Amino acid sequence: MASEEVVLLDCWASMFGMRVRIALAKKGVHYECIEQNLAHKSPLLLEMNPIHKKVPVLIHNNKPICESLVIVQYIDEVWNDKAPLMPSDAYQRAQARFWADFIDKKVYDAAWKIWRTKGEEQEGAKKDLIENLKVLENELGDKTYFGGETFGFLDVALVTYYSWFYTLEKLGNLSIEAECPKLIAWAKRCLQIESVSKSLPDSKKVLDFVLGLKQRMGI
Amino acid sequence: MASEEVVLLDCWASMFGMRVRIALAKKGVHYECIEQNLAHKSPLLLEMNPIHKKVPVLIHNNKPICESLVIVQYIDEVWNDKAPLMPSDAYQRAQARFWADFIDKKVYDAAWKIWRTKGEEQEGAKKDLIENLKVLENELGDKTYFGGETFGFLDVALVTYYSWFYTLEKLGNLSIEAECPKLIAWAKRCLQIESVSKSLPDSKKVLDFVLGLKQRMGI
Repeated sequence: MASEEVVLLDCWASMFGMRVRIALAKKGVHYECIEQNLAHKSPLLLEMNPIHKKVPVLIHNNKPICESLVIVQYIDEVWNDKAPLMPSDAYQRAQARFWADFIDKKVYDAAWKIWRTKGEEQEGAKKDLIENLKVLENELGDKTYFGGETFGFLDVALVTYYSWFYTLEKLGNLSIEAECPKLIAWAKRCLQIESVSKSLPDSKKVLDFVLGLKQRMGI
Repeated sequence: MASEEVVLLDCWASMFGMRVRIALAKKGVHYECIEQNLAHKSPLLLEMNPIHKKVPVLIHNNKPICESLVIVQYIDEVWNDKAPLMPSDAYQRAQARFWADFIDKKVYDAAWKIWRTKGEEQEGAKKDLIENLKVLENELGDKTYFGGETFGFLDVALVTYYSWFYTLEKLGNLSIEAECPKLIAWAKRCLQIESVSKSLPDSKKVLDFVLGLKQRMGI
């Protein structure tokens, strides 16, 4: 068991921060969360993540770890006495890493464009989002979770996007549930896990946040 | 020790493929390499990597693993009886993963733009490349390799870019060595390792390859 000076620099609406919150909750790690205002980045954030200047940053015994997927793997390796997140099999671990990378390359990009753009670009992003989610739904298949019977790394990586689905549906005028019913059923199963439900914000609060952002950005 | 039906779908000029070649060489894994023509993707490549349709793909006992950093970690975990690539310390592992991700996000993008664009965009890319390489040089510091005294994961992730430096210097009219002498000294140290030197192509052959590509693409 690692010692426990754990601080999380986070923003409540960040789906990347939520991943870290879920992982820490699954492991039962107590930590201090310092909410960041991303419009006015704190000296602490800039010091701890000088490269990307982004949340989340996990500070463990004064040492920073950045990038959510890196952090979740770190948490899984350091607090390895309970609730393993990575599959025990090397091939399954490779698959989990592959799909987590796919989520951040493909799903994030499409989601971002849905709330940031309009017209043709937004229509393209909507199509991309659904296509990519269908790919993930296909990868899930009939399994309970992505890794099988146990909630794990890839579930952590994807389920936080669910908290933004309502926003994407409203701003993109689409129904993800109609297109990907099995994926939504999976997300709802994940939300029955307390570590998940307590780490994800209310979907409507996310929409308000994004509407506020859009207004400030004039888009 | 894993069983040994190992096939690599690769393209000799791919810096991502070279990573896998280095890792396999370090581990002493015998494998069949099937060179791919990326202008006419083979049915095997499309079957084994339907998502990204890219090399490298490692096929181990008929099961494909895609994305070079995922593959290198897989190789390190499966052939774990010799030449560990990942640091043994969890924090150092997190750092290695963070910087490998930085390379693929920041250095790749700048390198790609240097040979694909002209004028202002190319000038911006040259500036970005040097800036990002300086960040890596700073991270290297006075260490022999990125992980310390032993050639490891982050060295694998970056050294393959060195085989493209000559091309970037010629096409971008810049000197990476003048800007980042310690990084070049590190690359030359890496090249003294047989697993590295035999996995990297001749720099001038890469330039010819890229000039051919540019001609075919009309850029």
